Amino acid sequence: MALFDASLISIESIECLPSGYKIRPIDKADFGAVEVLRVLTTVGDVTREAFEKVYESWVSHKDTYYVLVIENDIGDIVSVGSLIVEKKLIHNCGSIGHIEDIAVAKSEQGKKLGLTLIKTLTSISERLGCYKTILDCSENNIGFYEKCGFQKTGAMMTRRVEH
Amino acid sequence: MALFDASLISIESIECLPSGYKIRPIDKADFGAVEVLRVLTTVGDVTREAFEKVYESWVSHKDTYYVLVIENDIGDIVSVGSLIVEKKLIHNCGSIGHIEDIAVAKSEQGKKLGLTLIKTLTSISERLGCYKTILDCSENNIGFYEKCGFQKTGAMMTRRVEH
Ligand SMILES: CC(C)(COP(=O)(O)OP(=O)(O)OC[C@H]1O[C@@H](n2cnc3c(N)ncnc32)[C@H](O)[C@@H]1OP(=O)(O)O)[C@@H](O)C(=O)NCCC(=O)NCCS
Ligand SMILES: CC(C)(COP(=O)(O)OP(=O)(O)OC[C@H]1O[C@@H](n2cnc3c(N)ncnc32)[C@H](O)[C@@H]1OP(=O)(O)O)[C@@H](O)C(=O)NCCC(=O)NCCS
Repeated sequence: MALFDASLISIESIECLPSGYKIRPIDKADFGAVEVLRVLTTVGDVTREAFEKVYESWVSHKDTYYVLVIENDIGDIVSVGSLIVEKKLIHNCGSIGHIEDIAVAKSEQGKKLGLTLIKTLTSISERLGCYKTILDCSENNIGFYEKCGFQKTGAMMTRRVEH
Repeated sequence: MALFDASLISIESIECLPSGYKIRPIDKADFGAVEVLRVLTTVGDVTREAFEKVYESWVSHKDTYYVLVIENDIGDIVSVGSLIVEKKLIHNCGSIGHIEDIAVAKSEQGKKLGLTLIKTLTSISERLGCYKTILDCSENNIGFYEKCGFQKTGAMMTRRVEH
């Protein structure tokens, strides 16, 4: 079962990619996405079974997880990113999209894959009727997200579990 | 059916409240929460039926929405806040908690209800095993969230739908 309907991905998104590259919903076979996430943060020793369990949990939460991958011209997964849709009471029982865990493999950075990924996730969020799309980033990535049509509107606050 | 198990709310949370006040999971009958959210932002003309539909949608997304209300000593809802749990691949297939839509009725502000609400949502997030809890806020609320044990770690970026 697919995570979401691939027709939510606009033609413009596909046209922005280098020749032979594909952008599509993540699939249960896409264990390679785990490796790509290592550019972003600690991933740990995630097994194929653990990956498949997370994938199934995303599928089971209907209309919530929209995870995209970009495949290069030799079929390797080189980028991954997520949109999580949250149903609210405010704004006439509106929904918002949260963009999370954006990564482009080191060797593929600077080819507009990050830009295409963010634009595609944002366009999915808008097609689903979300009144806004938000994300958190470090100060040194603000410029990248401004190029993707985002504006700084506040602060990200974090509390980590104390050990 | 309850949105989540009330035993996730710690005793410490209950003890921090003014006498006669209660903190508990939101219920299908708590239409009053909609009024409280008006201190925060535009809510619009949300009917009781629309509220119940959102509530049912939260219930149907298992282990995702943890929405709390605080009731005062005469049984009015005076505060509301949400935790949304997101299942990730990073951090050994870890989860994080997103705190959203925190509101305390004007007449009840300054009684530590906001603090109790955030501490309770954070403790639920930690009991559920989330490795971190995050939220976005405006610059003028940073001090409040620091008192709740949060630290500024980045920027919030927003893209709104163009009209
Ligand atoms: C940040 C990241 C997603 C950008 O993806 P990318 O594919 O390398 O970037 P793109 O080629 O799509 O860049 C698009 C534009 O943004 C610019 N840009 C890229 N990173 C930038 C940054 N950190 N600050 C400012 N501008 C940036 C590019 O120069 C390009 O500008 P141009 O259109 O004028 O040429 C990617 O480098 C990455 O995964 N980095 C490591 C993990 C990470 O930091 N993730 C984000 C966490 S918040
Ligand atoms: C912000 C809000 C949630 C705080 O709740 P509250 O119940 O009024 O605050 P509390 O009584 O729990 O305050 C706890 C502590 O934080 C402090 N505090 C409250 N608001 C603060 C602010 N904006 N900046 C700095 N400190 C603040 C209080 O003085 C108190 O400090 P103390 O322990 O030293 O006495 C509430 O005022 C509110 O709903 N405001 C309108 C909506 C809003 O802005 N929501 C947050 C969106 S990001």
